[in-house]
Order: sequence, then C-alpha cells, then structure tokens
Amino acid sequence: MNNDRAFWRTAISSVRPNEIRVRGYDLMELIGSRPFGDVVYLLLSGDLPKGNEGRMMDALLVAACEHSVLAPSVNAARFVASAGVPLQAAVAAGTIGLGDFHGGAVESGADMLLEADQTQKLPREAAMHVAYLRKEDGLRLPGYGHAVHDPDPRGRKLLAVAGELGLSNRYVELARAFESVSKEVFGRPLAMNIDGAMAAILLELGLEPGLGKALYVIGRAAGLVAHVYEEQSRERPYRDVGWKNVRYEGPGARTPR
Amino acid sequence: MNNDRAFWRTAISSVRPNEIRVRGYDLMELIGSRPFGDVVYLLLSGDLPKGNEGRMMDALLVAACEHSVLAPSVNAARFVASAGVPLQAAVAAGTIGLGDFHGGAVESGADMLLEADQTQKLPREAAMHVAYLRKEDGLRLPGYGHAVHDPDPRGRKLLAVAGELGLSNRYVELARAFESVSKEVFGRPLAMNIDGAMAAILLELGLEPGLGKALYVIGRAAGLVAHVYEEQSRERPYRDVGWKNVRYEGPGARTPR
Amino acid sequence: MNNDRAFWRTAISSVRPNEIRVRGYDLMELIGSRPFGDVVYLLLSGDLPKGNEGRMMDALLVAACEHSVLAPSVNAARFVASAGVPLQAAVAAGTIGLGDFHGGAVESGADMLLEADQTQKLPREAAMHVAYLRKEDGLRLPGYGHAVHDPDPRGRKLLAVAGELGLSNRYVELARAFESVSKEVFGRPLAMNIDGAMAAILLELGLEPGLGKALYVIGRAAGLVAHVYEEQSRERPYRDVGWKNVRYEGPGARTPR
Amino acid sequence: MNNDRAFWRTAISSVRPNEIRVRGYDLMELIGSRPFGDVVYLLLSGDLPKGNEGRMMDALLVAACEHSVLAPSVNAARFVASAGVPLQAAVAAGTIGLGDFHGGAVESGADMLLEADQTQKLPREAAMHVAYLRKEDGLRLPGYGHAVHDPDPRGRKLLAVAGELGLSNRYVELARAFESVSKEVFGRPLAMNIDGAMAAILLELGLEPGLGKALYVIGRAAGLVAHVYEEQSRERPYRDVGWKNVRYEGPGARTPR
Repeated sequence: MNNDRAFWRTAISSVRPNEIRVRGYDLMELIGSRPFGDVVYLLLSGDLPKGNEGRMMDALLVAACEHSVLAPSVNAARFVASAGVPLQAAVAAGTIGLGDFHGGAVESGADMLLEADQTQKLPREAAMHVAYLRKEDGLRLPGYGHAVHDPDPRGRKLLAVAGELGLSNRYVELARAFESVSKEVFGRPLAMNIDGAMAAILLELGLEPGLGKALYVIGRAAGLVAHVYEEQSRERPYRDVGWKNVRYEGPGARTPR
Repeated sequence: MNNDRAFWRTAISSVRPNEIRVRGYDLMELIGSRPFGDVVYLLLSGDLPKGNEGRMMDALLVAACEHSVLAPSVNAARFVASAGVPLQAAVAAGTIGLGDFHGGAVESGADMLLEADQTQKLPREAAMHVAYLRKEDGLRLPGYGHAVHDPDPRGRKLLAVAGELGLSNRYVELARAFESVSKEVFGRPLAMNIDGAMAAILLELGLEPGLGKALYVIGRAAGLVAHVYEEQSRERPYRDVGWKNVRYEGPGARTPR
Repeated sequence: MNNDRAFWRTAISSVRPNEIRVRGYDLMELIGSRPFGDVVYLLLSGDLPKGNEGRMMDALLVAACEHSVLAPSVNAARFVASAGVPLQAAVAAGTIGLGDFHGGAVESGADMLLEADQTQKLPREAAMHVAYLRKEDGLRLPGYGHAVHDPDPRGRKLLAVAGELGLSNRYVELARAFESVSKEVFGRPLAMNIDGAMAAILLELGLEPGLGKALYVIGRAAGLVAHVYEEQSRERPYRDVGWKNVRYEGPGARTPR
Repeated sequence: MNNDRAFWRTAISSVRPNEIRVRGYDLMELIGSRPFGDVVYLLLSGDLPKGNEGRMMDALLVAACEHSVLAPSVNAARFVASAGVPLQAAVAAGTIGLGDFHGGAVESGADMLLEADQTQKLPREAAMHVAYLRKEDGLRLPGYGHAVHDPDPRGRKLLAVAGELGLSNRYVELARAFESVSKEVFGRPLAMNIDGAMAAILLELGLEPGLGKALYVIGRAAGLVAHVYEEQSRERPYRDVGWKNVRYEGPGARTPR
C-alpha cells in the first residue's frame, strides 16, 4: 500500500477483502490450529512462540481469570450490570478497575526485577540491594504478600509451570531471591503472590513491563463476563446497598444562608 | 470550509485558530455571562433559551447530581476508584452504570407521555387509556414509585419549579394524570418520582426522549467526582468485601477427570 | 458457610485462604494443565468440556481477537490511549464499543437460529420460513454479509473447525440453510460472516444467546491490548484529527441576544 | 445512625425516606434556587459559595464543555456511539479519555503554582525559579501553549472573569508570571491556555489540585452527550475508517512453521 501519510497505521495486522493477517500470518491458519495463548503471545510479542511461550501464556491467563467477587473490578462490574446495561459495557466498567492496586504490581514488579538484574550481582545480593533501596524510600515489594492468601497458591503454581516449560531462569531466580530476603529486610517473610510470579514470567517471555496489566485485562475478561451474566440472569435489577447500611459522616442539617 | 467528504462533520461547534463557536455562538461570549444550564440547553437543543429553559436545566442537573451511595453507579465508581485509577476513569465506570434501571425511566417515561399525548384525549382519559394498555402488556409506569422515597421529594420539587418558570403545560398535566389514575389501574397509588418529572419537563423543554439519560449523565458527573475523590482521599486502597461475606452457591469441590 | 442473607453470592467460584475453586475445581489443578479455552468454557457453561468444546472455544477466541483498526472499538481505544491513560482503561473504552452493530449479531443470530429450530421443519424450510418473516418485518439476517469480506473467511474457517471437532450439527445446518435461501428471499446471496458462524457454534456448545458478545469481549481484549500498547509506544500523544479536516455544518456565526 | 463499622460511609450526602441532604443542605432547597455551579462547588469544596465561587464554577464548566471533534475523548465517544450502545456508555468511553494529555495539565499546573507559591518569592522570581528547575529536568510548563490556538482565547477569558468576580489573586498572578518568563526560560513565548487558567482558578477557589480533572469531567459531559446523540441520530451505524486508509507496517506474509 502506498499510503505515506496515513492517519491510521499499525504493525499488528493487515486486512483487505477476504484476507486477514496478524503479524504477517494468515488468521485462517491460526484458527483451530493454534491455542489462544499462542495467538496472544503473537499479538503481544510480534511473533509466534518458538518454544513453550504459548502454553505459559495460557497458564497465566487461567491464573488471572477469576477470584470471585473479592476484587473491586468484579464488584464494579456487577453493580453496573444490575443497572441494566449491555454485557460488554458492564465488563468494561470492571476492566477500568484493574488499576495500580489491582494487578498493577505485575508492571512495577517487573521493573524491580529489571533493576535487580542490572546490578549484575548474584540473585540474593541483587535482591537484597534493591530491597533495601526500596525500604529506604518507604516502598514495599510489589508482588509479595496477599490480603487473603499466605502464600498465594497461584504464585507457586505459576513458578512450577514455568519450571516445567523451561521458562524459569534469571528473572524467576531473582523473584525467588526477593522472597527469601524479605524477612531480613522488612522484618517479616513476604511470600511471592500471583503478581510477583507474573512479573518474573513476563520477563522470561521477553515481554515488556508495560504489558504487565495485559495478563489480567485479557484473562479476567472471562471471569468478568461470567459475573456480569450471573448478575443479570440470577439477581434482581438495581443492586441496592440499602439506606440503613450507609453511615453519613458529614455536616449536620443546615440551611442555605 | 470546502470539505465535501469529511470523515468528521458536526453541527455542534466549529474550531479554528483562536476561535471556538458553539452552535454559531462565540464560546467567549458565553463564558462568564451564561449559566451552565443555558449552555447545556444550547448543546442539546441547538439554540440558547428563549425563556427559562436554562434555569430549568440547572434545576434538573441539581436534582440529578447526588443520591449518596444508594446508586449502583456510585458504588461501581467507588470500587473502581479504590483500585488506583485516574479520577476520570473511575467516574466513567460509574457513568456506564446509568442504565435502563437507573435513569432509563426518563426516556421511557417521555415516550409514554408522547403516546398519551397522541391519543388527543383529555389528560385523565389519555393517561387511563395508556396505563391500561401497559398493564395489559405486563408493563409498569416508568417514572412512578421509588425504592426509598414515597413520594420522591425531587419529583414534586421539579414540578413546582417548572410551574414557577412557566414550563408546566400539556406534558406535566399528563404526567400528573398518570399519577392520579395509578391507583385505579394498578391497585395502588404510585407517586411520580424524579424520573417521571424529568420525563415531562424534558418534553416541555422541547427535547427528544432519546436525551433522557443526558440529565443524569451530566448532573451526576458532579456527584460521581465527589465520591471518587472521597474514596481516593479518605478510604484505604482496594475496597474489599471480605471472603467471609461472600456466599458460594455453586458445585462442591470436584476434580477434573 | 452459614451466611443466609449475603449481599454477595455467586455460583462461579469460592475463595478462602490459600484456596480458589472455580465451579468446584481447584484453580491450581487448571493452571498449566488446561488450555484457556477449556477454562473459559468452564466459566461460561458451568463445567469443563466433555469433548472438544474447549478447543472450539479457543478457535472462536482466535477468530475474534483481531481485525486491525477496522473496528470502532479499536479506533476508540487508540484515541483514548493517546490521551494518556492506563492500559486497562483504554482497553475498556474499546470494549464498551462492542455494541449492537459490532458483534451484536452473534446474539441476535443465535436467537434467529433458535426460532428456526422451533419450527421443527427441515433446515431449508425452517430458514426460508424465518427469513421471510424477517423480510416482512423489514429486518436483515444477522450474521450474513460483511462490509469488507465476501465471503468472510473467518465464518467458513470456523464452520470447518466445528466440523472437525464434531460440533457441527442442527444449528450449523440451519445457519448454512439461511445462507442458501438468502438469494431467493432477499434478492442477493448473503454469505455467512464470522458472527453468523459464531451464533451457530455458540448454540452447538450449549451456551445461551445472551453470551454472544462474550466471544468478542474476551477474544478481542487481546487485540485491544496490542493496539493500545502500540499507540502508546509508537505514536505521538494526543491523536488529533486536525481542525482543517472537520466539516462544520451547523448555524453560522451569531450573537446571543 | 448507629452504624459503627459500615462498609459504606460518606460525608457527601445523606439519604433517608423522603429526605436527601447534600453536605447537610436539603437538596429540595437547592433545586430551582441555586445554579448548578453553586452545587458543584458545594459537592467539591464541602460548602456553598460564600462569594462568587459558584459563578466562577459555571464559567469553568462552560469553558470546558465543548471543543468540537478536536479531542480524542470526543472521537472515541463517537466511534463507540456508532457501534450501537446506550448514550451513557458512549459518553463514558469518551470520559475515560480525559487523560494526562487531555486536561491533565490542570492538576500538574496547580501543583506547579503551589511549588512556586512555596518559594515565597515575588511572582516573577518564583515563576523564573520554578521554570528553570523544570527546564533542567526536561519538563514543560503544564498549561502553556496549545496545538491549535495561540493564544487560547479561553484562558484569557477565564482570567478576565476571575478578575471581575474578585477571584484573581496570588495564584493568578503566579500563573501570569509563568507566561511572562516563558520566553526567557524556554526560548519562545508560551501563552497560557485553558488548562493553565483553570489551574490558577482552581487554587483561587480553594480546591485541591487532585480535582483538576473534575472541571472537564463535569463540563465536557455536556459536549460528549451532544456528540454521541448527533452520531447516533445523524450518521450511519458503524463508523468505518476503510481498509484502504490503513497503512500496514508490520512483517510481510509468512507461514507458521
């Protein structure tokens, strides 16, 4: 195409009548022959897996897909769903909520691992060094500790899978090292959670930290769909917290001057 | 502009260097001299008020702006806000939730009033006729009855304001008529709520039913901002319902075959 | 759990410290051993595949994942991404756009197939009957015809995969029958597109029409992530259409009275 | 209410049957008697205006309400609207796009003014000092310069209104000082734009920088509604950029190994 100043340009896919190519591959050759994880990896990395990256991606998406209503994203989606909106709009309300405190530790955890890697120290020394730097700055270890789980079984399982698939190298070592130094640095042991494991595996897959949220955005979409559909098919419209359950803490009754 | 096949075209406003015109009016002549209600009316109707339409619009926006956390939109926005996202994104999550069951009665109520109007009967007969038709179809009266208020004081107040501003004519009469026939048709009295009053006033203002949601989308934006800001400045991150407060009602523990 | 009046209840998953079960299955037994398609099917249907449903789901998600910027959802997501927002929020803006005219034909197509099925006629007669009914009502065939492709190669490929996986039965037959009668009924041949094929396969999988959008919401999330990331890493901030490219068609310059 | 551990608590408003109070004031006493700007100020600041703050708020909202399709938020909303979604959902897609590069300069501009204020220098010296600090860090002046306007007439008009309303004091002086030192520090004169003026006025109103986006979120909601409604009532469904207008820049055709 000779289209030098196109308003829209992309390196992701090309579409012309009766042909769709993703990163150069004919989409028809991918449908039915490639697992979704392979194609997600293709979309995010630019090429199909050379090894087990697609299987790893599938494992990451499965790990991220569902955690009941114990997630602000899911609560938001269900409230919105109850108000009578199309499925995709309610899911979107939930997706917005995959914020800095809800999956954001994948990106910041990956940044931390890169910082440790760049020290060129052995894993334990690197982790110790970076962990102390963070402590001095009043920062936590992103991807360690969990509000409900101790340890988070998803973190452990993902690392085991990464090992089986030959994707457990320098970054996973560093991630484990942060766990092992956490007690010495922060005074209490902090177990790697799902986000911490995802951060390490993201880097093992050669993906950039800025894609950290992608794993939840794609994987949790499935859980959000299930919750929105359940809300709309099983619960009464207009989820209502009830006025008696709200505590008002503002100024008392007053009159405009 | 000689731009015959523009991808983007609009009759709302024109922008060129150092000039912005809304529906033909210089925005600079509106800033500081016209209340927001006038300009909202301009945007939605195509011209500035010829009478009290702007003051009425202000009253509608004030009526719609806030109802505490007793609204799925607000709950959704606060959950999302707690997850660490920018203010506008959390507000948007709430806005999505202004669905069919949460403000949607303004549009369907306006449609019902138009249907009654087209009978060309006297208000009471028209309302009776249409109310019975709806009852036969198993439908309710959109804009009548409220989960918390009986009657909804906002509905009454808006009608009073419409009367003072000379905007209480045929559609308000019809809306009152539906209230008065509700007991005879549905077996219990149904007081007009805020949505029912908005529906009538929307038509008195000469606006189309399809703009029914606009009043909440614009007015409640202010309340949503306040709630999102309060959540982010006053509450702990990651609003969590607590795993003990969730009742699981699905299949018991089982193992993949 | 003895929690009789829980505000939150769900049959999708249960979470307690160190344990997450989805529809009764331990999530740890799914991570790494089950493809994402199996788990999506589990979330949406309530149980793991008994046959090839998971592989079919993977094929559907791959088919839905990407179609370049030739989709309002993707354009919206890229505009929003250019304004400087977190990845998940830009994806959500795109997700909202998976509306009635953008994937909505899966649900309405499935409804149409159910209507044809309920005639209990042979496929061709059933399709003919329902197609004429729609024509009389001024309706189109949802899932047939495409703005760019003729035929849409994704529709054909999905049906082929369904055949290979043993999931091509009554509903696929009916869907093909609509294609074959389209010329007779509507005066020109209408090839089944991706949505038409998805509609049939959704029913073959035993899923409800109301889940029609789910395939795009989940699958296209991957494409949206790729586009948002590309926009933010490769393009300049604040995508701007340029004031010279907008045609203003409203009232000329005027002054408030 | 004796509700010590309420999940939901708020200081914004209280609702009980037949009564709604916002920051202590009966909403019914505000509807029809107070302009929307007063009530927005009440919601954001915690009390009704003591002087002209409400009129200033109205002017800010009017200034923010519309800028044609020359805003990624509006383009996004229109693309989404074209796909067939409810009005509020399309507006929300646009609202998400009020990101760091699209209104975000109000907050960062206010932070910059506070930094200058804290130097306790005279305006010109304070502005010079902070401007040089930013230049050293490779940062721009948030709220100065504009892609289309030079100068942005909205910035000038807002400052004039602030002057008339007695709300032009220390922060406005500082904001003007940044404009006057811009040439010396950055080598070319940078005129204050709408965001720069909003930043100063936000502080004059006693509001916090974190509310900077609020002015657009609330004000532009009106413009977004108008654009979504126009798109849905005046344009064809499914806004399509056309496959010929997209330039593909990725890998050439290739085959999965």
